[in-house]
Amino acid sequence: MIGEDKLKNLIKENNTKIVLVVMDGAGDLPDESGKTALEQADIPNMDKLAGKSELGLTLPIDYGITPGSGPAHLSLFGYDPVKHEIGRGVLEAYGIGIELKSNQLAARANFATRNKDGIILDRRAGRIPTEENERLCKIINKNIDKIDDVKIEVYPGKEHRFVVVFTGENLHDGLLDADPEEVNKKEKLVQNTDEKSSKAADIANKFIKNLHVVLAGEEKANTCLLRGIAKKPAINGFKERYGLNARAIATYPMYKGLSRIVGMEVAEDLNTIEDEITSLKEDFNNFDFFYFHIKKTDSYGEDGNRKGKVKVMEEFDSHLPEILKLGPDVICVTADHSTPTTMSAHSWHPNPLLIYGQNLRKDRGSKFDESTCAEGVCGTMYAKNVMQLLLAQSSRLKKFGA
Amino acid sequence: MIGEDKLKNLIKENNTKIVLVVMDGAGDLPDESGKTALEQADIPNMDKLAGKSELGLTLPIDYGITPGSGPAHLSLFGYDPVKHEIGRGVLEAYGIGIELKSNQLAARANFATRNKDGIILDRRAGRIPTEENERLCKIINKNIDKIDDVKIEVYPGKEHRFVVVFTGENLHDGLLDADPEEVNKKEKLVQNTDEKSSKAADIANKFIKNLHVVLAGEEKANTCLLRGIAKKPAINGFKERYGLNARAIATYPMYKGLSRIVGMEVAEDLNTIEDEITSLKEDFNNFDFFYFHIKKTDSYGEDGNRKGKVKVMEEFDSHLPEILKLGPDVICVTADHSTPTTMSAHSWHPNPLLIYGQNLRKDRGSKFDESTCAEGVCGTMYAKNVMQLLLAQSSRLKKFGA
Repeated sequence: MIGEDKLKNLIKENNTKIVLVVMDGAGDLPDESGKTALEQADIPNMDKLAGKSELGLTLPIDYGITPGSGPAHLSLFGYDPVKHEIGRGVLEAYGIGIELKSNQLAARANFATRNKDGIILDRRAGRIPTEENERLCKIINKNIDKIDDVKIEVYPGKEHRFVVVFTGENLHDGLLDADPEEVNKKEKLVQNTDEKSSKAADIANKFIKNLHVVLAGEEKANTCLLRGIAKKPAINGFKERYGLNARAIATYPMYKGLSRIVGMEVAEDLNTIEDEITSLKEDFNNFDFFYFHIKKTDSYGEDGNRKGKVKVMEEFDSHLPEILKLGPDVICVTADHSTPTTMSAHSWHPNPLLIYGQNLRKDRGSKFDESTCAEGVCGTMYAKNVMQLLLAQSSRLKKFGA
Repeated sequence: MIGEDKLKNLIKENNTKIVLVVMDGAGDLPDESGKTALEQADIPNMDKLAGKSELGLTLPIDYGITPGSGPAHLSLFGYDPVKHEIGRGVLEAYGIGIELKSNQLAARANFATRNKDGIILDRRAGRIPTEENERLCKIINKNIDKIDDVKIEVYPGKEHRFVVVFTGENLHDGLLDADPEEVNKKEKLVQNTDEKSSKAADIANKFIKNLHVVLAGEEKANTCLLRGIAKKPAINGFKERYGLNARAIATYPMYKGLSRIVGMEVAEDLNTIEDEITSLKEDFNNFDFFYFHIKKTDSYGEDGNRKGKVKVMEEFDSHLPEILKLGPDVICVTADHSTPTTMSAHSWHPNPLLIYGQNLRKDRGSKFDESTCAEGVCGTMYAKNVMQLLLAQSSRLKKFGA
């Protein structure tokens, strides 16, 4: 396989444009109807495009491995998801718009409830409303500015969730979560798994103890759980790696966060597929690569709501001609991982893949669904290799060797 | 790819059951009838199961590589067969029930005939009967107890085959065989390929010379050839690696030996497929994973006996409903390697693969044969990854990343 360094040597500039549409969790399994969501959906535009595209299936991580959204997206963006693990704290931070520096650690935090003996009674502090969360974060920021030489900042998320950013020297992220994982268990402190992470563990634990003092008067939110404490991974962005000015068009924080990590510029304030289409049109001349994320196929998959999932696919399909009309050189429609409504969860099943461009093999299938893609000319491939095909189709790769 | 360490982190306990049926050497090539063995066989139960399973093809080692039974099985058990090479001596030892310790070396030995000038006249000593072999091993054990500080034990196998176990400190296995490989050639001594294996080479060669003295009066079996001298490989067993209590149901020594190496408990005294089915039924509640080996598809393949091979497939097929009736959560039917009757030998052609479970993609095929499997939703995959699919289908893997 080509490897990151050799691939970088093959990159050439071009003015071609690539659109990567990710229907999150699109892949499914047959339900009692004997059909998958894509097979049930009335998606004439995707089917028509499939008829003139190369089809295949992609493995997000590996055979049998069910991925979280983070690694599944990294893979689709061409990064080895096993080599580049991104801490959940980092994803949360990026998701709410915080760009981490190399001397920062981020933790995903929950407000929680403890009794005087340190037993965790509620891991989400009764899911306090977001306004409460904002009030509490203000109090913390006012009262806990620094611990030793480390600067502390907290940022409210939704409901009981917030992010803690630690800024300082010698903060390493070999840390285990401060979370008993179940209620009615004794609270936990952060533990370091290696010597160099001892300072970070110490600061994080002092933060928890200071927070107990500052929030002592609160009825519900009188402690916090710290999870996924991590630094920004050291990875090259799309510009450096592929020579692509990349735009992320997504509605949900986590995907926007991931996009920032790989160096994309992120469109803001989008809520619907229609918003996303408008954003794509407005920015089509300003970027080379567009990551277009559709969230609700996954949300309905997790809910086991087949009708809802099918409807989102149909909604996107109705907008597809608008994307085609923009004339991208390459368009890829795929998913990050499968979220079968029959399982109400992410799964390991490979993703349907469609690549349309100028230099295509001929596929027999003219349906965009799992079984047709299984017989496609791309075969079953690692998602990590899709970017190489998109670069090739957009004439952005030089020849390897003479 | 996920890698051994990361996979281990994803393992979760469950009470699901997996049956892995290995029809040894099942894959074939079309003969003059234009059909493969699976295509000729009347196997309605496997075909019916194929109709509701995921199909594919597996590469035992790599494209074009013909494996021995050892590496082909290791791969199917999820171990990298190139990284974990198992010496033939070790396989032989395990096959006759000897569990090797870390300070032991095992050699696969033949009784052979030499003349007074050290020319090997018969590499199998005229295929002496097993009783003769047992008599000779008794003599050796009585007369050669120790060489320097190394303990010597020999164990009779069938006909001219026996196993030598060397026990002592500083015995390393960088050794070349003491075997001229052809008759009427000068005998060979063991050679060491590195410095640290010099003691082992010295002891092995002293053993051969002592044996010449001890068996000087024998007409045929007056020397031995030593091959595949090796230590037990340091690999984790199924319990440690996958959290699976595994049972091996096999009739032949070598497969039982391999199973012991990967930490399976081995059923004893089985001779027929019917015996094996009975054993599976008896132990179904006592284990999580069952390796069910069918030997004679391979034996008939090696003999070029198409009719015999087809008949064994049909025999197994008639028992398949009994396995299904036990209600395993996952059943996989496949082979370790192909043994085409048209070649009378192992080959590199990928193996047909069928995986039945609860969370399946839909396959269009409803025949269990090579061409149908080639169009299956699993595609062509490395056999090493099959275990990951079986673990996923049996809900024994956690999600990778958030």
